[in-house]
Amino acid sequence: MADIYIALVHYPVYDRDHKVVTTSITNMDIHDIARSARTYGVKRYFVVTPTRTLRLLAQKILDHWERGYGSTYNETRKDALSLVALADDIDATVQMIQKDTGETPRLVATSARAGARRIAFAEIREKVAASGQPLLFLFGTGWGLTEAVLDRADYILEPIRGVTDYNHLSVRAAAAILLDRLRGER
Amino acid sequence: MADIYIALVHYPVYDRDHKVVTTSITNMDIHDIARSARTYGVKRYFVVTPTRTLRLLAQKILDHWERGYGSTYNETRKDALSLVALADDIDATVQMIQKDTGETPRLVATSARAGARRIAFAEIREKVAASGQPLLFLFGTGWGLTEAVLDRADYILEPIRGVTDYNHLSVRAAAAILLDRLRGER
Repeated sequence: MADIYIALVHYPVYDRDHKVVTTSITNMDIHDIARSARTYGVKRYFVVTPTRTLRLLAQKILDHWERGYGSTYNETRKDALSLVALADDIDATVQMIQKDTGETPRLVATSARAGARRIAFAEIREKVAASGQPLLFLFGTGWGLTEAVLDRADYILEPIRGVTDYNHLSVRAAAAILLDRLRGER
Repeated sequence: MADIYIALVHYPVYDRDHKVVTTSITNMDIHDIARSARTYGVKRYFVVTPTRTLRLLAQKILDHWERGYGSTYNETRKDALSLVALADDIDATVQMIQKDTGETPRLVATSARAGARRIAFAEIREKVAASGQPLLFLFGTGWGLTEAVLDRADYILEPIRGVTDYNHLSVRAAAAILLDRLRGER
């Protein structure tokens, strides 16, 4: 089975007016996605932002749960948050994986938008089931990853579809569903 | 296809010490689960609490997005939140569905705990695919629905399993995964 890494990208992403922005780190994104990552055996969950003060904020949250009061209050949170790493950008994320594993991860961009070059969940599931290079799944905050990020990815995953044309899942829900589709019991 | 209803139950649920408590309503639970519900064609999403002041708080949040500033700022939120209804308890929830549809929903309790009388996802998926009485899925906040709620349910759904023994998904992630397993494209 190929190793899975995930990254929550706070830059570069679109805002509602399609401008490229840096979004804020939120406490809930760190916690929820860490717990999903832990459930599905993700190797590491990267929180990616170029803003140093936001990385420091995130580090404070992590310290609270790993070493501070939270570590004794809730062991299962500590356990999940031990998967979280902070990174400046996607390149730094890739380098950290290279350093840990000696391998270059394949980049899989996710998007709620349809478009060219989308790969089906079933196909990515097969790549995950096979052994091989690790896979790094990129999730965009705000209104999603920019086209530049999609262009550099090895694969762009098809959008998650429900039974309606509504495609505004939270990134927390989308990450959970993606992991279940790739690794959940069928 | 049977209609799906979901309810987020704030009482009666366990706290970390297995005491029966009422948990707080959180903004994120309302938003995230409403967006997942909208994606998967859920008929109505009930936020269930016996605490009147918490229902009033929830109503304020809903009003903000349905009629206040939020309704013009973000149409897709408004769209999702229009599915949300507030209810005092599980009985009141059932009565509201009876009033709307003339039918009594079958209660499906969810739990992260293994135990007696669990029904497989595949089996519930078949019941959803078949026509028939609506299904009301109950999600517990805090440390989960009490045994009394599980006992009165028509079905208790098996826990969501990833690839590890970690069973501490957020209720937001669990609801998203459940809906995708029941109604998502396979």
